[in-house]
Amino acid sequence: MNERIAHAGLASRLVSAEQAAALIQPGMAVGMSGFTGAGYPKAVPKALASRIEAARERGEQFAIRILTGASTAPELDGVLARAGGIEFRLPYQSDPELRGRINGGQIEYMDIHLGHVAQHALFGFLGRIDLAIVEVTAILPDGRLVPSTSVGNNKTWLDLADKVIIEVNHRQPRAMEGMHDVYYGTAKPPHRKPIPLAHPGDRIGEPYLKVDLDKVVAVVESDAPDRIGRFAPIDEVSRSIAGHLVEFFRHEIRAGRLGEQLLPLQSGVGNIANAVLAGLHEGGFRGLTAFTEVIQDGMLDLIGNGTIDMASATSFSLSPEGVEEFARNIDLYREKIVLRPQEISNHAELVRRLGVIGMNGMVEADLYGNVNSTHVCGTSIINGIGGSGDFARNGFMSCFLSPSTAKNGAISAFVPMVSHVDHTEHDVAVLVSEQGLADLRGLSPKQRARAIINNCAHPDYRPMLQDYYDRALRDSKGRHTPHLLAEALSWHQRFLETGTMKA
Amino acid sequence: MNERIAHAGLASRLVSAEQAAALIQPGMAVGMSGFTGAGYPKAVPKALASRIEAARERGEQFAIRILTGASTAPELDGVLARAGGIEFRLPYQSDPELRGRINGGQIEYMDIHLGHVAQHALFGFLGRIDLAIVEVTAILPDGRLVPSTSVGNNKTWLDLADKVIIEVNHRQPRAMEGMHDVYYGTAKPPHRKPIPLAHPGDRIGEPYLKVDLDKVVAVVESDAPDRIGRFAPIDEVSRSIAGHLVEFFRHEIRAGRLGEQLLPLQSGVGNIANAVLAGLHEGGFRGLTAFTEVIQDGMLDLIGNGTIDMASATSFSLSPEGVEEFARNIDLYREKIVLRPQEISNHAELVRRLGVIGMNGMVEADLYGNVNSTHVCGTSIINGIGGSGDFARNGFMSCFLSPSTAKNGAISAFVPMVSHVDHTEHDVAVLVSEQGLADLRGLSPKQRARAIINNCAHPDYRPMLQDYYDRALRDSKGRHTPHLLAEALSWHQRFLETGTMKA
Repeated sequence: MNERIAHAGLASRLVSAEQAAALIQPGMAVGMSGFTGAGYPKAVPKALASRIEAARERGEQFAIRILTGASTAPELDGVLARAGGIEFRLPYQSDPELRGRINGGQIEYMDIHLGHVAQHALFGFLGRIDLAIVEVTAILPDGRLVPSTSVGNNKTWLDLADKVIIEVNHRQPRAMEGMHDVYYGTAKPPHRKPIPLAHPGDRIGEPYLKVDLDKVVAVVESDAPDRIGRFAPIDEVSRSIAGHLVEFFRHEIRAGRLGEQLLPLQSGVGNIANAVLAGLHEGGFRGLTAFTEVIQDGMLDLIGNGTIDMASATSFSLSPEGVEEFARNIDLYREKIVLRPQEISNHAELVRRLGVIGMNGMVEADLYGNVNSTHVCGTSIINGIGGSGDFARNGFMSCFLSPSTAKNGAISAFVPMVSHVDHTEHDVAVLVSEQGLADLRGLSPKQRARAIINNCAHPDYRPMLQDYYDRALRDSKGRHTPHLLAEALSWHQRFLETGTMKA
Repeated sequence: MNERIAHAGLASRLVSAEQAAALIQPGMAVGMSGFTGAGYPKAVPKALASRIEAARERGEQFAIRILTGASTAPELDGVLARAGGIEFRLPYQSDPELRGRINGGQIEYMDIHLGHVAQHALFGFLGRIDLAIVEVTAILPDGRLVPSTSVGNNKTWLDLADKVIIEVNHRQPRAMEGMHDVYYGTAKPPHRKPIPLAHPGDRIGEPYLKVDLDKVVAVVESDAPDRIGRFAPIDEVSRSIAGHLVEFFRHEIRAGRLGEQLLPLQSGVGNIANAVLAGLHEGGFRGLTAFTEVIQDGMLDLIGNGTIDMASATSFSLSPEGVEEFARNIDLYREKIVLRPQEISNHAELVRRLGVIGMNGMVEADLYGNVNSTHVCGTSIINGIGGSGDFARNGFMSCFLSPSTAKNGAISAFVPMVSHVDHTEHDVAVLVSEQGLADLRGLSPKQRARAIINNCAHPDYRPMLQDYYDRALRDSKGRHTPHLLAEALSWHQRFLETGTMKA
């Protein structure tokens, strides 16, 4: 028995990854840990992929349903997709092998709000959960589990699955103990009560996951880091976008609509999000809070320099340097960061109560403020909606950020009609590109169109958008939301045919 | 001083509707009472319309911004739209004169979730509110107001407006006193607390509206009924739709996903909604609850016969017969009905906690489960999204109901791609037509498409949908959400050109 597996009964169930993988049968629905590349099981999925490949060589079908917290990594989604071992997958994903097979039509994928997964599973909407495979940092003497670098849907998979495989990852910092807050007060209606959280830093649960010990069929050890790449340095376009948004926040403070400490921030993952965080620091903001999904490197910096006083999330997503920094100052971060189940980090009730300011990337927006967060030309999914809808709908104010063009100018992020809608005109308050910011609050569709064309569109596409809008206003059947239906998706079609949206 | 205006100071401000209307200036933003044709001011808007027409005859511009709870009636939206007196309007509306001018491009209209209006006003997103005009049933000796047949956004307009005009309507039943529950505990973040409501019948506020007496610039008397037409008898198509949904509820009870008393019901307005309510009674359901926006005639029947034990809403929408029945048994209904501000009836926190089952009509749905609730052929708005999004996003399960065709078969309610999106694929659980029911829970886009084609589409359109889907699956650039962009909106375009979606 080792220090990380301090419960005798569970220690006795220690097996190899291959032995654990042998317990998985074709057709099973498996709930796995993992959120934005953190805290996913690292040993059993790889062993399962080998088992599936061997079965395939024998001419046998072997695929399973996989439910996770959000995206995982090549060692989970990648190897299993490549082996042909996934028949159904939810929610958010980002692995290229998996994405390729989803868009090739070989894997059924369900894109669902990250804040809805746990309750849909609990309601029985996602079917039976046969097995949970959950990475943890350690097992306590009484069998409680110290969570890993993400909490995600782990509570839900452990609670609902018939059987459980636990992966204990020796590489995760043991000193994370105490950082998590797992709330066990959710229930099925009509038995729900108010969730007693009123500030991003409130601790309303306990720092451990619980599991019915009788369900644990295997414990596996691993020793591997979360696999997250380095972030690119902040580029000029991201810096411009961040600049417009920070300037807007200053404007809102002067107008009395926001206080000096703003409201709890949610920010997506990536270069623009990091630029916004850096922009807030450079803009002199101090004592802010975050109620978000993911802690990126940028957030650690802001905690270190006092810009952010408290951050609530469900997962880390740190570069190798970020992991080192985290380990180095873990005692500080344990005070300033709370990791919660994604059911709580993205909960409608809490996002609304706290008044979260949502800041998310997008693929494209249209003249009337509808936003596409997920699909290229309406048919190929990128990563999924993630939690952007949880925050955009229920928060204080929803901001969507994007460079005004992509593919060296061949694609405009501002189009006549989006090719897929993830956030409707009712849910989009602010659009920002490197060109500027369109404040859509309180505007009609036609007023929005003018703001978006003038403030956000790239100059190369502005005349084309204005031309479409003018002709739509003249010839549209209805003039509440003017459109020329035969032409509304023509920019996307042109891109498919010619490689550019430009006429 | 009369019994209905029992506060001396306010009684002294009694003036004619014309005198009150003279206080309104061009460009003012006016928050008015009124929700689905109930509780709107009946005297001042008419007098204002005359004032506006007179100004217009003198060659003067005179238009105002109007914010309400939801739809009102010809005496408000109708007369003011006809007079050219509205420059901007929000939220939901249904008056033909108003709608015509919105779709003609003369009036700017903002469609916004009914559950968001109050907080957007409070946040300052809707600009300054110059004036509130609110109908009440009576004024108490201490100046508190007995609300009328709708509560809507009245608390918000009274709180935020610089000045207030009160209309006391002698026609509204004085015995409604005690039926309302006005919660004064909402606040701006970061000062929000959990809303202490855990059951549809909980009373968490007080039965009166409060107003700063110094702001009241006029009190006007009126004596006119809410103007709501008779409902058509339930037709065969509506009965079939209701039948499929009730059968589905039975199935869910057998599967253990719903209890015998279901969960609190929300239902839209109209014939299908009434058919569902009647179907629940005929199906033997008893002791149900409603957490909804509007009390229709059908709901009174169900309270009377024990099918519904408790109903929470923000407004009535009763036919003349319904009004008589309400008055006759008002002591019963006062115990069984609670009218709340729409901020509470549609609140994300409460809809989620209670696990509301949302049942709303729609214009059309597409192969992948996206729903258009508002626009004809993408450009002309009908009534607005209303509260459907509040319930679809945050409730237990969202059901959208529609006949499979409209205009004698010239329009299919199930199309390749919807021409406007109000509810995304992420928010739609169940689609029902008279043909059958598609249970979309836990399905990928392609799985949804098969269910919708086979279960919901009209047989006249089923082969066309199947053909589009098959070709899209073959030729689409991406096969996660297969589409042929050049053809996706062609059914709508064909309808515009030929008068039918049929090829």
